Amino acid sequence: MPELVYLNGWRGPFEDAFISVNDRGYIFGDGVYEVIRVYSGKMFALQDHLRRLEASAKAVEINLPGGKEKIGVICEELLNQSRIKEAMVYVQLTRGTAPRNHIFDYQMEPNLLVTVRHLPEIPASVYSEGTCVITHPDFRWHMCNVKSISLQANILAKQKAHKSGALEAIFVLDDGTVTEAASSNVFMVKGEVLKTHPLGNKILPGITRDYVIRLARSLELEVQEEAFSIGELLEADEVFCTNTIFEVMPVVRVDDKTIGNGRPGKLTNRLCNNFKSLRSL
Amino acid sequence: MPELVYLNGWRGPFEDAFISVNDRGYIFGDGVYEVIRVYSGKMFALQDHLRRLEASAKAVEINLPGGKEKIGVICEELLNQSRIKEAMVYVQLTRGTAPRNHIFDYQMEPNLLVTVRHLPEIPASVYSEGTCVITHPDFRWHMCNVKSISLQANILAKQKAHKSGALEAIFVLDDGTVTEAASSNVFMVKGEVLKTHPLGNKILPGITRDYVIRLARSLELEVQEEAFSIGELLEADEVFCTNTIFEVMPVVRVDDKTIGNGRPGKLTNRLCNNFKSLRSL
Repeated sequence: MPELVYLNGWRGPFEDAFISVNDRGYIFGDGVYEVIRVYSGKMFALQDHLRRLEASAKAVEINLPGGKEKIGVICEELLNQSRIKEAMVYVQLTRGTAPRNHIFDYQMEPNLLVTVRHLPEIPASVYSEGTCVITHPDFRWHMCNVKSISLQANILAKQKAHKSGALEAIFVLDDGTVTEAASSNVFMVKGEVLKTHPLGNKILPGITRDYVIRLARSLELEVQEEAFSIGELLEADEVFCTNTIFEVMPVVRVDDKTIGNGRPGKLTNRLCNNFKSLRSL
Repeated sequence: MPELVYLNGWRGPFEDAFISVNDRGYIFGDGVYEVIRVYSGKMFALQDHLRRLEASAKAVEINLPGGKEKIGVICEELLNQSRIKEAMVYVQLTRGTAPRNHIFDYQMEPNLLVTVRHLPEIPASVYSEGTCVITHPDFRWHMCNVKSISLQANILAKQKAHKSGALEAIFVLDDGTVTEAASSNVFMVKGEVLKTHPLGNKILPGITRDYVIRLARSLELEVQEEAFSIGELLEADEVFCTNTIFEVMPVVRVDDKTIGNGRPGKLTNRLCNNFKSLRSL
């Protein structure tokens, strides 16, 4: 079951996939992307991902060649061709190829990359024991609602977490507000109430975030989409992060502070387990 | 006189120059760069550019293969091979090639791209008539001292300027402080005093900025590296921007406000003309 690349109509293995050095993704980080998780050969929440890709592209004025439906078909075909069952589908749209110049032509034809790869192995202990995260000043740009490939800030924060033996870096604004993490959204639980930062330009509108909110509400839990501070987070009963690959990831330590009793929380486990039932949606 | 590309030892024309889709520049905007201006076949301030490249790379923990001296030699050789006399040398160092993952390996071998291109034509009116600029909220990340290729914020601001018929977008922080422009540093003149934002993480340490400061001081002008507000800028006698390609670019309108008498200022012209004498340094 080979990992496969689609690039502007071409299909083949990674080792043969090359893009012009004049691609604006390579030169300017001028592109947007999506990561879609595949369960048993089926893409989860494909339409949500395509809608968000469309919104990201629109926000930065990149054309969506042939519309999002065509991209969906390409993903589907490449996935089938790869025959990988537990996979990640990656979609990247860069503005196009042109001699380096900040200014762009609106008629530019974007470069579309789609890849299918095996899902990375996630240790079972992530869910049974929980994970550690660090905090990091939120030093990113102010259009975090766009899933941009200009990710150097996220890279550096995530690497810093990795160096400390942590799995994620939670971003904190100057005023102490927790926004999200380097590649996931952040939730806290206090009593029976879940809190997560509201949508806007400070966070990515996470698709897993959205499913978890709806799931929690269907379980009659209260979810407040409200900003909270790092102080509140450290005093939370439970903390978890959400993203497409990790789904619901329990957090049991933030920097040197143990969260709750140092074990994945009750509601976190409940959401984590219930999320599995969504997979076949 | 052909435009030429160097890529990890390979040399050839742009149309044959391709990079792996697993390059971290293409996937994450994970790289740093320099643009060096060539006057009469000779690179200007090469050592300054190499030092800054080294500083940028260090700040984001990218290795500099063979040290900066080797990169200087590659630039020199490619420039000579191209035989272009009025040129731009572009140097880009991305972290390397690996399957997509935020976390990186410190042993990773970077990808080095060097290109030599003809200098774009700059209309004489830029200097004789001056240029218009717009203001834009400074929505970039907080490591603007690093010359990162994660440039989507700069792209969008510059494009917005272009759409308004302006040449540059001047960034203004929430508190009204002017930092720099999308691809240049900003100076204002009031009376006999020049002001420009101090070094730090809010601006790029511009090489032309530095030469202009030293030039001004050698002409016994007072230069204050101090933050100033958009209000002060609009009331300035003169405004100009500096970068490698435009050198000293007079600004005569900011949004709808005419600066001074609407003509390139006296000190601006003096610095602009004197800068030409540096070219043979």
